[in-house]
This record gives sequence, C-alpha cells and structure tokens, in this order.
Amino acid sequence: MINTPAEIAQLQARRRGLSDRLPGLPIALWSGQAAARNFPANRYPFRASSHFLYFGGLSLERAVLLMVDGRSILFWDEPTVADALWHGPEPSRVVLAAEMGLDADYPLAELATVLGDRRADLATVAVQSPAARSHQAAILGRSLPEPSQATGADGDLVAAIVAVRSTQDASALSELRRSAAIAVAAHQAGLRATPSVTTEAEVRAAIEAEMIACDAHPAYNSIVTIRGEVLHNERYDNEINPGDLLLVDAGAEVSSGWASDITRTWPVSGEFSATQRAVYEVVLAAQRAAIAAVRPGVEYRSIHQTGSLVLIEGLVDLGILQGKPAELVDRDAHTLFFPHGIGHLLGLDVHDMEDLGDRAGYAPGRSRSDRFGWCFLRLDRPLEAGMVVTIEPGFYQVPGLLNNRDQRDRYGDCVNWERLEEFDDVRGIRIEDDVLVTAEGSEVLTAELPTDPDDICALMV
Amino acid sequence: MINTPAEIAQLQARRRGLSDRLPGLPIALWSGQAAARNFPANRYPFRASSHFLYFGGLSLERAVLLMVDGRSILFWDEPTVADALWHGPEPSRVVLAAEMGLDADYPLAELATVLGDRRADLATVAVQSPAARSHQAAILGRSLPEPSQATGADGDLVAAIVAVRSTQDASALSELRRSAAIAVAAHQAGLRATPSVTTEAEVRAAIEAEMIACDAHPAYNSIVTIRGEVLHNERYDNEINPGDLLLVDAGAEVSSGWASDITRTWPVSGEFSATQRAVYEVVLAAQRAAIAAVRPGVEYRSIHQTGSLVLIEGLVDLGILQGKPAELVDRDAHTLFFPHGIGHLLGLDVHDMEDLGDRAGYAPGRSRSDRFGWCFLRLDRPLEAGMVVTIEPGFYQVPGLLNNRDQRDRYGDCVNWERLEEFDDVRGIRIEDDVLVTAEGSEVLTAELPTDPDDICALMV
Repeated sequence: MINTPAEIAQLQARRRGLSDRLPGLPIALWSGQAAARNFPANRYPFRASSHFLYFGGLSLERAVLLMVDGRSILFWDEPTVADALWHGPEPSRVVLAAEMGLDADYPLAELATVLGDRRADLATVAVQSPAARSHQAAILGRSLPEPSQATGADGDLVAAIVAVRSTQDASALSELRRSAAIAVAAHQAGLRATPSVTTEAEVRAAIEAEMIACDAHPAYNSIVTIRGEVLHNERYDNEINPGDLLLVDAGAEVSSGWASDITRTWPVSGEFSATQRAVYEVVLAAQRAAIAAVRPGVEYRSIHQTGSLVLIEGLVDLGILQGKPAELVDRDAHTLFFPHGIGHLLGLDVHDMEDLGDRAGYAPGRSRSDRFGWCFLRLDRPLEAGMVVTIEPGFYQVPGLLNNRDQRDRYGDCVNWERLEEFDDVRGIRIEDDVLVTAEGSEVLTAELPTDPDDICALMV
Repeated sequence: MINTPAEIAQLQARRRGLSDRLPGLPIALWSGQAAARNFPANRYPFRASSHFLYFGGLSLERAVLLMVDGRSILFWDEPTVADALWHGPEPSRVVLAAEMGLDADYPLAELATVLGDRRADLATVAVQSPAARSHQAAILGRSLPEPSQATGADGDLVAAIVAVRSTQDASALSELRRSAAIAVAAHQAGLRATPSVTTEAEVRAAIEAEMIACDAHPAYNSIVTIRGEVLHNERYDNEINPGDLLLVDAGAEVSSGWASDITRTWPVSGEFSATQRAVYEVVLAAQRAAIAAVRPGVEYRSIHQTGSLVLIEGLVDLGILQGKPAELVDRDAHTLFFPHGIGHLLGLDVHDMEDLGDRAGYAPGRSRSDRFGWCFLRLDRPLEAGMVVTIEPGFYQVPGLLNNRDQRDRYGDCVNWERLEEFDDVRGIRIEDDVLVTAEGSEVLTAELPTDPDDICALMV
C-alpha cells in the first residue's frame, strides 16, 4: 500500500478530472465493507469499490473520499487496540491521507459535520455492499437508486466517472500490464500442469497458485472446464481425458485492484484432433480479424460484426454452415455457435464499470438489442485511444441452443447437421486477449501468451 | 452433488431430530444467495447457509427448505434457458428433492401459498445474505432479529439447531475427516515449498493449490505470515528469511461445506533457533496437556485453564515469567502472551454455528467474561462425545500488549523483561489441531500432521 510520488500525482489528476467536469458539486465515494460468508467473523476478502480505488488509490475498508470545494478529504476510523491485536496495526490516518495525496482527514463520524449544509447537494454512487449502502443513504438522507438508474446529481456523477475512467492513464496501464503478465504466467502454469494431472481442479490449482504466489488473486471465478459450452462454468469436478478440449478463462486482480482477462483453449492430450484444430483456426481467424479492426473511432459493435463474419466464413468453409456469409450474419446465424458478445471494457473491474449497468459500456442513447446474441453485447460505443477492451470470439455447441425448436426452425436451412456431427469433439472454444486501443491502432497486452495452436501446445511441456 | 442412500437417510434423521424437538412448529431454512463483489455479475462463490446445508444436504442458491407437519419440502426455481446458457443445465427440482430425501418440491414463489395460515407461526434463522434476509422478512411478514437475539419460536429453533448440530453424526464425521486430510496435505505442501521460495505469498500458493486441486478451498482467509503476533493476519506481502518463524493457520472447506482448521509454525530455514525451539516446546506442552484433558463432561473453560497453566509453567522455567504458576494464572498473566481462547467448535463452520452468536458456544445462562483474554473464549460449555473442537494455544509478542501502560503496571513484576528480550526472534507461535470428543476421551483428526518440532522440520524437504 505504498504510492509513489508519481502515483500520488496521478491520483490528484484523476480527482481534478472528475471535479472539473462537475463544478461546484460535492462528491463522496464510499469504499464499502467486506461481506460475511457463513458468519460475521468469517468474511470474504475485502474488495473496495472500484470508484474509490480509482480516485483514492488505497484499499481502505469503511472509508469515504469526499471531494468538495477543491479539497479532497478522507473519512476513516483508525483501528482500535482490539482491532490491532487481531488484524495488526495500520498506518495512521494522516499517513494514509498523505499516501492518497489528500488535503485533510477525519474520523468517519465527522462526515456529516464536515459536509454541513452541502450534504443536501452531495452526489455519490451506490456501492455493492448493502451495509455500506445503508450508511450512504443515512448520510445523504435519501434512498439511493441502483447506479444504472441514477438521476440528477448522482446521474451527472456517473457520467463524469465514465468519462474519466473509460481511458487508462499511465498508472492504470502500468497496473494493467502487471496484471496481464500474471495472468499470462498463470495460463502458462496451467498448460505445463495439464499433461501430468487428471482433473479440472488440478489445472485450476496450478493457474490460481501462480496468481496467489504473486500476491494477486482471480479477478473473477476462473473457468477451467472440458465443458466449454457452458459459458460461465464455475464447476471443476470433471476428469480431463485425452480427446477433451480444456477451456480456461482466468484473469488476475493485482493488489491495487486492476484486472486482466484471458481465455485459451487447449487439448488435454497436447494435440488437437483434426476437427478441433479446424474449428480452433476459425475462431482464431475471427479473433485476429477483430483485433486488426481495433482503432480509435471504430464502433465496437462493428468489431463484433467483423468477428462474427469471419467466424461464419470459416464455418461455411468447413461445411458446417451453408449459404452466403454476409447473409448468414444478417440473419444472426453466428449466434447459434457464438451467442455472446465479442468483449467488454477492462480496467479495475473485469467488466469495467459494470456496476453502473450499461452507462459505461453503451454510448448515451443506446441500449441493449432485443435480438438474441446481440443482447449480450456489453460494449457498444466508438473506441477511443487509451481504452482497454477484450476481444474474445468463441464457438460452442450448446445443446439448449442447437436443439431448441425455434432455433431449428429459424436456422435449419443454414446448418449442415450431418457435417456438424463430425465435430462432436468440439464442445467449446474461446480465445480472448486484452487489447489497448492506441493512436495507431492497438496493442495486445496479453500477446506474450500465444494463440497459434502449435505454439500453445508447445507450452504443455 | 450426489448423496448416497446412507447420506439421504442421515439427512432425514437430522430433520427428524430437529422436528421432534419442536413439535407442531413449521420451520423454514433459507440457503441464501451469492454476494456481489465489484459488480452484480462478478459474485463471490456461493456458499449456502450452514443450517440449510446441514438439514438439506445440497448447496442450492435461493432455495428454502420447509419442514411442516412431518413433511420436508424444497422451494427452488429451476434455471431459465438463459441461465442454463451461462451457468449450465441443472438437474430438475424433483431430482434434487429426491437427492435431499424430501417429500415435495415447488417453485420458490409458492412458498407463501403452501404455508397458508401456518405462515404466522413460521420459525426461521436469519441468513447472512442481506438480499435473502429481505426475502425472509417478506415471507414471514415481520422483521428478523440477528440470530443471537432471536426470541419466541425463532429462539426455540436456534436452541434446537444447537442441540442437533453440536455433536457430529457419521456423515458429518466422514466429511470432517476428509476436510482434515486435505488441510494436512495443504500444510505438507506449504512445508515442502518453504525452502525454495522467498515470500509468504508463495507458501500460501502452495497451500491453497493443494486445496483447490482437491476441489476444496480455504474455509477462511488463510494466515501465512512471519508476523504471527498479528492474530488474524491476512496479508501475504512479506519476504521470508532464515531466522523467521512462519505461522500458517489454514483449513479447507470441502464441496459439501465441512471445514478443518490447522495451525503449524515452522522455521523458514528448516531449523529452529534455540530460543524459538524453547518457546515452541512450551506451546506444544500446553497443547498436549489441553488435548489430554479433552473428554466428555469436562468444561472447555477448564481446558483453556489447563493450557494456560502449562504455558505459564513453561515460561517460568524459561525465566520469561517469574512467580508461582498457579498465582500467575489467577492473575491472567498468560494473557500477556496468549490473549485468545484455546479453541472453538468446528463443523460446517470453522467457528461452528457462530452465526448464532454465542448460543452454540456458550451454555445457557453463560456469557462472555469481561476479563481481557477470557473475553475472547469462543466456547464455554461442558464437552460431549461427538463434539469436534480445536485446541490451539499460542505465544505471541504483541507490541501493543507488551508496551501497553496498563499491562506494564499490572504485570511488570511478573515478567523478566531483560530475559524476554533474548527471545526477540519469537514473534508468534500457534499449534492447532482438530479434536473429536469420544466416549473414551478424544481423537485428533489432524494427527497425521506432526507437531513435534523435529518431525515438522523433517517435512521441509
């Protein structure tokens, strides 16, 4: 928890960036508090609200960062003697406030007093912790809507936060690169472990051990599964056998809170079957085409469209789909095998700012499509230099989709079902990288982990 | 999630045990729901309420188990098609109800209807999840106090649950042994890793990887620290160096929810210094004496007293304390170096049933002492065959205690401060095992992991 002078200056610049967008508006950001697991003393590890982390720079529990009249102030209670016995001494509040580059610090109970009659104007963002949200409501003297529904001053604050946090500054990029490097090493550890183990759980152990050894942890519940067709599969109880593809979607969160998000799919045996390799190459072509399309000004929706088209072209070449690729995309035929969106913003949150609903992911005035597949797109706005996004097309054989009567009626003529049966050893493939939008185009932050199928298999030794 | 016929019979016996204690009372147990981490879709892994797990036997989210008029009924909603796309298909509700040995099953929304006018009498236990607690209050039509404050029918339910869950049946013991074996292997992995790594985080990684590889996970935030004097230290950012003692308090939770809880302390170099070994032997003598005292009918408080006395005798022998051991214990002098309680109940929760406050840990009519040290005792009731408890004395040099003016005034004459300075390479030592109370005395469930200092060091290769 030591911020360098450069990091402190960056924190101050972030706060100025926010305040300048909201002149005269007092802003308070709550850090939240840890959630009880099975009893109050057995808590999940505390994870501060990303907005507090972004503008405050330290993970302090039960803290409030107030920005008012050009000053930034910390409200936080130092641990009692008993707390220190159990959880260790902490730096004093004044030291922490200096680390955050703040102007003043007070006990939490003085928040209302310091606010005085500015309390009526105060803007905030509701945090995830219900207990902290109660405190927010008590201080503000009003109920707090979900951030996605925030209006008035709270709504203005959400818009300003989205404007500031959508592109990554130097400190943020440094942490995102560090997080990416840990996730790369974690996948490498998973690849190395695969030949010598017999269960999904053991591969997961190798992956997460690499993160834990770096004093990081999973940014989300890792996916390590031979049943890749379950998009967010969080079970790890299968044996892995030669012939299986293992889909691994695992990213790290470093101690400062910044995230990475990588997916690779590899054959348990170390060798793709001909059918697995063929589909893998199609997904990889889609991913490469999508990454190649990333540059400032491009609509992310069009990147989803590009990836979907290349995927369909490949599936037509394989004889799985039949028809003209452009027409098949227009008919959303890709959603049969690729139902989700091609990616999302990445930052302090693995789906960055998704606590704000779609207010970060969708440009003002836009909202989710009601078309299947497209409705899962988490990002629909023009890209800007400094944004970090994931690019993660996939191919899945989801029985619930492929056997669905409506889908069969709609797409029965597009699919060569007999040909598809030959690919029954391909349950799910996804390839995902973290991509920084640069002035010139893009930089893949996770490029050190190969996507070429031979290069991936070469890491399994 | 497959229960055997014997396990199903055991679940039915547990429910009968509860209902027989509360004739005529309808009982509903909520499983709870996962907590959001930094945004709603990024959730902590779901962990069902232990009461639901104990009487229901399956980890189902947003479920209610109703026991009324001799029938046991599951209320739960099967996943939608969209849920299944993301999280995979689940067995049908009727299949799950059969696995739980239940009599009927309904969608969650039918709970109120099925209850009918029995709703006014319904007893329950408030769960940890605030969202689920709101649902409880809505169904019951009344606010729910903390379980520690429950009165009336809810209070009767708490008392009956404590009576049933305090001693472990055959299914429970089988899972507790499995959990203990995983924790033993995890500590062994940590010991093996120590000589080849340089940070606390790397040792933690080796320990938790062993749990994850068994499809288990930490039952609580692991403690892996060279600063063992911070009792619940949850930081892992120190280097480890020869000369340091590493204190590891790590237990597993198996997929059924049952926990283990082991502490070992070992020298990073593989060799205790003379001073470290001397204090280690004192703590070990205290632990062995306390375990030897475990048998049905013995007051757990007296075991704490026994351990404290042996600890003081050892510290007097070392010249750290001075005076008559029995008098020093009477003056609570052990709390200077051993401020916490000697252990707690262990079961589905690592502090079993601590969601009920002290209603499981303390015999009726008893409450926490206001004496320092004793106030941290989590268990104060006579032991019964079938209970599982931890035995975990320790020795710590906590600057906040040893330098505290009040403590110095009170105990200045008991401590040879010059002699104590010779032991400055001993920051914290704790030795903890999980102990089953048997008819004859006790069985150490974690005995496979040695406590002898030479035997421990022999595992570091």
